Amino acid sequence: MARLLDGRRLARRLEAQIEERVREGTARHGRPPGLATVLVGDDPASEVYVGRKAKACRRVGIHNPEHRLSAETTENELLALIADLNADAAIDGILVQLPLPGHIDKDRVIDAIGPAKDVDAFHPESVGHALLGNEAMAPCTPYGIMLLLDDADIPLAGAEVVIVNHSDLIGKPLAALLINRDATVTVCHRLTKDVAHHTRRADIVVTGTGGKRPLAASDIREGAVVVDVSTVREADGAIHGDAGPDVAGKAAWITPVPGGVGPMTIAVLLQNTVRAYRRNVGA
Amino acid sequence: MARLLDGRRLARRLEAQIEERVREGTARHGRPPGLATVLVGDDPASEVYVGRKAKACRRVGIHNPEHRLSAETTENELLALIADLNADAAIDGILVQLPLPGHIDKDRVIDAIGPAKDVDAFHPESVGHALLGNEAMAPCTPYGIMLLLDDADIPLAGAEVVIVNHSDLIGKPLAALLINRDATVTVCHRLTKDVAHHTRRADIVVTGTGGKRPLAASDIREGAVVVDVSTVREADGAIHGDAGPDVAGKAAWITPVPGGVGPMTIAVLLQNTVRAYRRNVGA
Repeated sequence: MARLLDGRRLARRLEAQIEERVREGTARHGRPPGLATVLVGDDPASEVYVGRKAKACRRVGIHNPEHRLSAETTENELLALIADLNADAAIDGILVQLPLPGHIDKDRVIDAIGPAKDVDAFHPESVGHALLGNEAMAPCTPYGIMLLLDDADIPLAGAEVVIVNHSDLIGKPLAALLINRDATVTVCHRLTKDVAHHTRRADIVVTGTGGKRPLAASDIREGAVVVDVSTVREADGAIHGDAGPDVAGKAAWITPVPGGVGPMTIAVLLQNTVRAYRRNVGA
Repeated sequence: MARLLDGRRLARRLEAQIEERVREGTARHGRPPGLATVLVGDDPASEVYVGRKAKACRRVGIHNPEHRLSAETTENELLALIADLNADAAIDGILVQLPLPGHIDKDRVIDAIGPAKDVDAFHPESVGHALLGNEAMAPCTPYGIMLLLDDADIPLAGAEVVIVNHSDLIGKPLAALLINRDATVTVCHRLTKDVAHHTRRADIVVTGTGGKRPLAASDIREGAVVVDVSTVREADGAIHGDAGPDVAGKAAWITPVPGGVGPMTIAVLLQNTVRAYRRNVGA
């Protein structure tokens, strides 16, 4: 039976370190780290995510003012708010919850966030730093996966890694981070001729298809590491990822869903906020 | 026998278009595009590259002031020159020839080039834009390869591409450009367990190992496309890439060395300069 890549446990451990740093920093510099959250409209899934991040901020002592704007907010109003937050000395990170309403140009909004406050690491400059292997804001979900793999001492140099996802937020930046660690990386997606051919030869499979392409035991080799980035919520409330129940019987390591990658994404967001804070206060 | 991906011919065609735009722009806006070249020290290979770029600028009418600095130039002196060039309204692009002497921090110098003048697309922001698929400065060698493949109508969506190179300048940005076009991309390098296993299954092989890992006919499948990014100069003056002489008998398409990827790199540099110019003059 596969061992668990337990994101909830690792995130708790990281949060304990972060809380310690926040406490020390607040005592020394007279203010806690500040992460401003901006939510436009009332998408229910976004509410859930923002709520989870707010709870995590409270747990570690990060100041987390929320800016809730109506779905009718104009792009200019949103850009003006971001300009204010860029200039606000009590704010170290700015998180604009995606998706934004269709009349707002997402790229323009992300580009407006000062790179130093881009704790989501969505800005092209942050993404470029990740690809070039520079120390900077870490893309939250990809870096969370790296921390999980490192925590389990899973070797990356020379490992055959197959990623089934080629999005801007997951597949592409994760590929860059893994290549920087000398893994041999293949990025697959819905136009790949034979995804199973790739996943079957992989030492590490990262799957994030939102349930569109389930992963079965026959799709992996014995002893593979399986990282499941998908979270699918069924009508009856049941939650699962891409990996079917038989995968754990063949894999050596697997991330549970929920409790795998999800908590790590939030832990990295907190880490990025504290990193931005320490730079701002000159620590 | 493989058909040639003739970079010299395509580059000439692109240069003709660029020359036309430069002539029109110069007439309308009263000045030609300006590409400042900075060469520190006297590395003979760098001399050759700078000389080639200077010739190309002359062919198309781009103003190309050269700044030759001694190997003893300090980092601060170089940064001061770049600040001047960033502020110079007659300069649209800044090209700092690499490598720089060891006492100068390359990343600091590249970061100092304004992203709008980063025609080499080395700046993290340019690299990030490439990964995110945004219109911006194109990384010269990777984008040159894309133009060669497109010119030959080689299908990319769903194609299995194997890149043997994971550098910041070639493998990583090229992987991003190909993923953006829905290719299934694998990035290999010296720690990859079995490179030939990957190249043998590829529709398109891109090899750039500087001759360290030669590519033989037995390493590719019948009808593959082979892009050879390496240029190796033997003691007797002979020039070759990674691909051995037997590869052309099995591949469907192949880049010659010289005359394949090399001229395309320069053509993209000129394109980037004209793009920056048109933005600066408000065209």
